[in-house]
Amino acid sequence: MLSLRLTSFTHLFSPPSSAVISRRSPAILRRRHHPLPWSLAASFSAQSSAAETQDRVENSKNRVTERVITPRSQDFNAWYLDIIANAELADYGPVRGTMVIRPYGYAIWEAIQEYLNVKFKETGHSNMYFPQFIPYSFIEKEASHVEGFSPELALVTIGGGKELEEKLVVRPTSETIVNHMFTQWIHSYRDLPLMINQWANVTRWEMRTKPFVRTLEFLWQEGHTAHATLEEAEKEAIQMIDIYTRFAYEQAAIPVITGRKSKVETFAGACKTYTIEAMMGDKKALQAGTSHNLGQNFARAFGTQFTDENGLREYVWQTSWAISTRFVGGIIMTHGDDAGLMLPPKIAPIQVVIVPIWKKDDEKEAVLNAASSVKDVLQRSGIKVKLDDSDQRTPGWKFNFWEMKGVPLRIEIGPRDVASGSVVISRRDIPGKQGKVFGISMEPLNLEAYVKDKLDEIQSSLLERAIAFRDSNIVDVSTYDDLKAAISQGKWARGPWSASDEDELTVKEETGATIRCFPFEQPQGVKRCLMTCNPAEEVAIFAKSY
Amino acid sequence: MLSLRLTSFTHLFSPPSSAVISRRSPAILRRRHHPLPWSLAASFSAQSSAAETQDRVENSKNRVTERVITPRSQDFNAWYLDIIANAELADYGPVRGTMVIRPYGYAIWEAIQEYLNVKFKETGHSNMYFPQFIPYSFIEKEASHVEGFSPELALVTIGGGKELEEKLVVRPTSETIVNHMFTQWIHSYRDLPLMINQWANVTRWEMRTKPFVRTLEFLWQEGHTAHATLEEAEKEAIQMIDIYTRFAYEQAAIPVITGRKSKVETFAGACKTYTIEAMMGDKKALQAGTSHNLGQNFARAFGTQFTDENGLREYVWQTSWAISTRFVGGIIMTHGDDAGLMLPPKIAPIQVVIVPIWKKDDEKEAVLNAASSVKDVLQRSGIKVKLDDSDQRTPGWKFNFWEMKGVPLRIEIGPRDVASGSVVISRRDIPGKQGKVFGISMEPLNLEAYVKDKLDEIQSSLLERAIAFRDSNIVDVSTYDDLKAAISQGKWARGPWSASDEDELTVKEETGATIRCFPFEQPQGVKRCLMTCNPAEEVAIFAKSY
Repeated sequence: MLSLRLTSFTHLFSPPSSAVISRRSPAILRRRHHPLPWSLAASFSAQSSAAETQDRVENSKNRVTERVITPRSQDFNAWYLDIIANAELADYGPVRGTMVIRPYGYAIWEAIQEYLNVKFKETGHSNMYFPQFIPYSFIEKEASHVEGFSPELALVTIGGGKELEEKLVVRPTSETIVNHMFTQWIHSYRDLPLMINQWANVTRWEMRTKPFVRTLEFLWQEGHTAHATLEEAEKEAIQMIDIYTRFAYEQAAIPVITGRKSKVETFAGACKTYTIEAMMGDKKALQAGTSHNLGQNFARAFGTQFTDENGLREYVWQTSWAISTRFVGGIIMTHGDDAGLMLPPKIAPIQVVIVPIWKKDDEKEAVLNAASSVKDVLQRSGIKVKLDDSDQRTPGWKFNFWEMKGVPLRIEIGPRDVASGSVVISRRDIPGKQGKVFGISMEPLNLEAYVKDKLDEIQSSLLERAIAFRDSNIVDVSTYDDLKAAISQGKWARGPWSASDEDELTVKEETGATIRCFPFEQPQGVKRCLMTCNPAEEVAIFAKSY
Repeated sequence: MLSLRLTSFTHLFSPPSSAVISRRSPAILRRRHHPLPWSLAASFSAQSSAAETQDRVENSKNRVTERVITPRSQDFNAWYLDIIANAELADYGPVRGTMVIRPYGYAIWEAIQEYLNVKFKETGHSNMYFPQFIPYSFIEKEASHVEGFSPELALVTIGGGKELEEKLVVRPTSETIVNHMFTQWIHSYRDLPLMINQWANVTRWEMRTKPFVRTLEFLWQEGHTAHATLEEAEKEAIQMIDIYTRFAYEQAAIPVITGRKSKVETFAGACKTYTIEAMMGDKKALQAGTSHNLGQNFARAFGTQFTDENGLREYVWQTSWAISTRFVGGIIMTHGDDAGLMLPPKIAPIQVVIVPIWKKDDEKEAVLNAASSVKDVLQRSGIKVKLDDSDQRTPGWKFNFWEMKGVPLRIEIGPRDVASGSVVISRRDIPGKQGKVFGISMEPLNLEAYVKDKLDEIQSSLLERAIAFRDSNIVDVSTYDDLKAAISQGKWARGPWSASDEDELTVKEETGATIRCFPFEQPQGVKRCLMTCNPAEEVAIFAKSY
């Protein structure tokens, strides 16, 4: 077990604020399995020994505590929660299931935003902002939409001290209010396509929550477009899932599998849902982004029409698409290891950390000067660099700490390095001596080129590793028994599927796995459904998921 | 009256969605003065003739309508609402008092964000995100805070289909939840200062709403910091109001007056509130940004303590500071004129619009080619440029349209310009021929330099004009009678003040004016309070305000 001296995270293991608890009736407390704010903390302590949990609680009472990260192989969920706490990515909010995104976690989200925001604008979308309060009646207008969302709504019933005449829904997604406004902005074919996006918070009253992956409130972007034809809408839905796919591979080094959702798994109100599915380190699937072809479903419910070139009134064709802070959870669970977080350079808030090393006071100044000028060189060339020059921690502690925070490259500078005009560089993705190179010249042009080169190498290497992991954990199956065997080994199963929705639900009941998608990349040849032996046009991917 | 053929804005003058209305009881409808979604629409129609209002409603029924912008001098509020609708800055949401920020309005907000976000990071603040749901009990902890905010809270009482044990407040501001979290992150003096910021939506159940200026939900940034000493907190509060001041002057060309709020006007829970006060075109004051020294008020309420260097437990000293989408309203009301919006180049989403002019078909290609290459030249040099090459509108229509949208510079290119290799450039801030220069060479280096120069000139000119307007409308007063006279002329009054809170409230009751601030810039010399004739240390500024 990696052991670090870190400030305590008392809050992680303490119940929500006493103020909240004291207002809960005993009946409510009884109904809950655990007094912990996150329901998955329950599954965590179920899997850890009671003694270990007790030990953690004891430890957390001290200001500075010997904190450990549970090994990933031992308990994936505990490992995940430990990383989030120790790397200071997020914290529990006072209301059950809510999350505070801390600066280091938020900086990852900002990197995601920066990339996607540019892509959205390049493809002709404008940012705007819709109110988060939606009249309850709006949600009821599209039949499958209300069915999908009504169990998880948060409702405002009191405003300015008065009971409201109509309850207000706190935005779980914005298709309804977007259509309400679109009817006012869209008149003729000249107003189409209308392509907008918003960065916003959304609320879904989830019962089983987990930081980043599923929270009562989360941050996302939601794109909404309206088109004159089905073909255009379909092209847009595909374009956006392609942008998400490229983002996942090229920025986050996550080799998602892109495909179409089954009818059962399609978004409430959509005709087709496209998805990117990522394999986490525990081999569970994470739906990391979706793009919906909404057809005319919302247009018909809200009367969103336009006059076409022949003067006829037609319903618009629509899409919507979203990526959320859940993606940060996907990055943690794809690349992290026993030592902690491992961040792809392109989305790392800190790409290079410099740790100066000195023993005697007379060495300090020269070492810090050299470290500082190395920092300046890298910063000027656009690299995100942090110099950890505090003298409250040992170099060894700093090595562990920044490894745990997932910083891709570490530069060490000691007195001998200063004398020889060189530095030592360690890669986060290759542990120990193997990832360490001595004697890299400090000469600016050389150092800059070397560091950029290594960051690129790490970026590629993380992706390759994730691809290898993914591919070794997908099993091609041709019968239901094969499928059951694969799922019970914790793997993904890929096999031909043309069976019914009921059969799909049977698979879910019996194995816990769902169809993640019909991947865009399909194998050649004749296929027969693994369940019915009827001809099948496509293979589907089955997996347990978050 | 400027008259434009624009798409209709039916929604502006129609009641909220019938779905919402139909669920309101007749009693509720009776209680309201008007069935219009914005309460200020009431004051609008009160000031306009009934016939005129009827005319507008009639017009709005046609798809493409002869739309007018009410002259600013005739009815400032109607003018403001007309600009927001015609320039497509914002629209009414379906819930009373909510606002949809449309792409053009949102782009102004993005320009504000881009500038401030960099300044916040440069001064050591990190972005993060706090949940918007706050346990009701939190709001009650700080006595003056609950008094200030409880009348305007939106409360979630139902989640996931169940009545909640404790009502949740939809964030009106985050001091309470921030302190709840700070108690978990701050242990010793080494954890200080803690300096964070979030970009978020906030909800306040306002009764009198107006797009951008006061809406039920709005967007803002809120900074929150904790320090070891009062001096540090005070320095931070001043630093942030200085950043806001510089932003107002240098980016938005708004010559705000920066100062301290009176005790009566101080933020609920703060020791001191600093403010930037802007004079709008109707001479009313707009509080455009505030920075609070919170002292230890919230720290004591929430127990936010740290161990100092001597091992003693002390309460932290805090600040908070915010600027919101209200600022967009301030920009409109500072610079706009009868022709519409007028945007300072530094925050304009479009800085230059190119209007190609051709009559015969054989001219079209050459003109469009030239226009397109001018666009490329300017775009490459970082200027935000739009080429309006649609052939559905006449050049004259486009001139009016882009003037109404406030674009600082217009470039016209016709066949004769192409022949002579030059363009015509018109300034938005100087109407007619005076602002028009012929024969500017298209040669890239020349054109780029000329345009950048003109944009700088416009930026300065807008600021100078606003300073002149402000200064000619502030009256120095030495008696209460002087003050009353100044206010009744619609001006700001500046005079020595050392009277009581009660006297301050008397001024408000009798004149409608409040103390906007005690400005940082104070005149020299001995002062006597305008109300009591007692010695006074400072002058205060009195004005009616939004």
